[in-house]
Amino acid sequence: MSVFARFRRVASDSGFLWAGTLALDRVAPFGALGWWRPCVVSPQRLGEQVAVVLKAWGMPPDHVAITTEKIVYADLRGIDAHGCAMLPFYDELRSAGNLKPDATVGTVNESEVMAVLDGGGGLGHVPGTMAMERAIEKCRSTGVGIVTVRNSGHYGAAGAYAAMAAQHGLIGLTTTSTQTRSIVPTFGKTSLLGTNPLAFAAPTRRNRTFLLDMTTAAESFGTLLTLWRRGRRIPRGLALDDRGRSVTNGRSAARYRRLLPLGSDRDRGSHKGYGLAVAVDILSAVLPGVALASPEGGRRVRVGHFFLALDPARFRDPSGFADDLDEWIDTLHAVEPVDPEQPVLVAGDPEEDALAERSAHGIPLSRSVFEGIRAVARACGAPFVLDRNLTSR
Amino acid sequence: MSVFARFRRVASDSGFLWAGTLALDRVAPFGALGWWRPCVVSPQRLGEQVAVVLKAWGMPPDHVAITTEKIVYADLRGIDAHGCAMLPFYDELRSAGNLKPDATVGTVNESEVMAVLDGGGGLGHVPGTMAMERAIEKCRSTGVGIVTVRNSGHYGAAGAYAAMAAQHGLIGLTTTSTQTRSIVPTFGKTSLLGTNPLAFAAPTRRNRTFLLDMTTAAESFGTLLTLWRRGRRIPRGLALDDRGRSVTNGRSAARYRRLLPLGSDRDRGSHKGYGLAVAVDILSAVLPGVALASPEGGRRVRVGHFFLALDPARFRDPSGFADDLDEWIDTLHAVEPVDPEQPVLVAGDPEEDALAERSAHGIPLSRSVFEGIRAVARACGAPFVLDRNLTSR
Repeated sequence: MSVFARFRRVASDSGFLWAGTLALDRVAPFGALGWWRPCVVSPQRLGEQVAVVLKAWGMPPDHVAITTEKIVYADLRGIDAHGCAMLPFYDELRSAGNLKPDATVGTVNESEVMAVLDGGGGLGHVPGTMAMERAIEKCRSTGVGIVTVRNSGHYGAAGAYAAMAAQHGLIGLTTTSTQTRSIVPTFGKTSLLGTNPLAFAAPTRRNRTFLLDMTTAAESFGTLLTLWRRGRRIPRGLALDDRGRSVTNGRSAARYRRLLPLGSDRDRGSHKGYGLAVAVDILSAVLPGVALASPEGGRRVRVGHFFLALDPARFRDPSGFADDLDEWIDTLHAVEPVDPEQPVLVAGDPEEDALAERSAHGIPLSRSVFEGIRAVARACGAPFVLDRNLTSR
Repeated sequence: MSVFARFRRVASDSGFLWAGTLALDRVAPFGALGWWRPCVVSPQRLGEQVAVVLKAWGMPPDHVAITTEKIVYADLRGIDAHGCAMLPFYDELRSAGNLKPDATVGTVNESEVMAVLDGGGGLGHVPGTMAMERAIEKCRSTGVGIVTVRNSGHYGAAGAYAAMAAQHGLIGLTTTSTQTRSIVPTFGKTSLLGTNPLAFAAPTRRNRTFLLDMTTAAESFGTLLTLWRRGRRIPRGLALDDRGRSVTNGRSAARYRRLLPLGSDRDRGSHKGYGLAVAVDILSAVLPGVALASPEGGRRVRVGHFFLALDPARFRDPSGFADDLDEWIDTLHAVEPVDPEQPVLVAGDPEEDALAERSAHGIPLSRSVFEGIRAVARACGAPFVLDRNLTSR
């Protein structure tokens, strides 16, 4: 447990894996030693595991179903930092009394085109799903639906909500505030903003849905981790040390937790990534009325979300919209690449590739995630089912 | 005129100054030689000059007033690439029959919450202003207003339209497609996307309006130009050569016109800047129904715009919104800077600083802009009034 105590000390919404994997996965080539390789679980088995844990926490069955679906959505699409890897963090919040698994979602305010929901202090997946459903409903009758959520928690992968709109032939946009100080404002020395993601989806006919799901930081902690695992150094322009200098050592980056905004530095446009991060705060915290201030080094307990659904059919012939977007996506895919081995992609491609791969071959879990979930299950008396029919690779 | 022929050859919506200034401003320290220094004109004089040119082109008086106001808005705020410096480019389009100065703006489609306008093939300032006014009106009655514009032209600084919403206590968002291929998709070798800007504004009580006005490229051509003028080299990660390598020579960057997306490269998140650029195309070209394809190396003749106005008072107590945003802006300004001489700024600060400076001391014009406007005025028989009461610095 001492390893997990250390693991949890730096747990956070988007970067919680960091120190755990430092402690467990980086020590030696476990795979080479033969006693640990990433194990691979089926989406069904993973869903079962997530569901029994949520149920043991006292979450009502309909909320368990929605939350599990959104968590496995992320794991299936390679968005590992926002899937089942979050369970230990959720459990930590729950144990500290900062997350109510049995929260009920209420409507604060509503009109033909907008609504404000209250998440009741629980996780964000259920109010997030209800909010986008509500926005889609309103969109059906007026062409536009905008819903904010206050008093909510982590809602997983933002793209899952934007994609809901696209599945109904609508444009979808969502933003969320986050709990941990992560991004350093341009010219600043200390982190203040969350990783503040946004997701934007648009429907197509032939091609995959256009689905942009991004943090407004230059890179997420999850990606930094992946880069660092491949080699000791991370690229300059992703994170700062405590004196405001760019760090290339992954361990230092984890310790200082000072991510640079998208753009890296002022010369390369970081004021835009920083501005986008503030815009996300405005839509998802200031607009729903969620506190932004947090004690130095501490976390916000509650977050807020923003959802927009927009019907292209109100603006032009709907088939024209999908056809034009398909044609544009084809044009983007056809741009000559610098490296013939790496073709030009369109937002959503990597997630769909991961979905195809993981649907067919299962979801790989790192040792820290696997053991983290085992500990969470043990603590709440839920069965641990991940080690049944386990394969490794 | 041979210099101006060269100047015009590479003219474009956002980068047209480039070769002109290469030809005129970079040759030698003109100021030091004493026969040319940037001249400084009053906003009133500049507005007068712009207005007489537009009038001579046959633009109706009410459209002249709106267009002039939007052009001088940019020059007053230091957004030089989108102000009067655009007149030679507009004139070029007009002469080629690709811009109708006397266009009328029509309504294609309208409901309680949305509208589609047709710009009639003219400049974008008038349909853009009318569209944001329409969005604000709708917002007053429903809380949300969304308006798209098709068949339009360059609309100047995007921030001017977002700021209109904030002046009414509303959140404002606008995006626009652009005419010239500028941004290279991540992993790609040739430019395909426009500079595709977006602007987002939110109202405050005590502080300046939060106003993010950004291209989705790492840097605009205008900024590249400024950087290059200060010294021969531009930072890596802003532009590519024809083999897909980062260029640090400003002249090469101008020749190849292959801007990198915000983020610079994949390791530093350029797929996000690229994704945002495509999202801007979806909202401002695919949604209104404007052609995106353009011949290799050629320009799109028409562009489209997207406008959103959103009333915070429908989502929470309106004073709470402005108060919370003010507090957040104070917190951002108070972040300890890396360099004590360069405090942390908030989006909108540089433009407001320029506004204060230029309102008091006038608007500096480079020689190429000054002479470009002289040539435009001469060509249409409008008086050239910029050299009256001229000061230099």
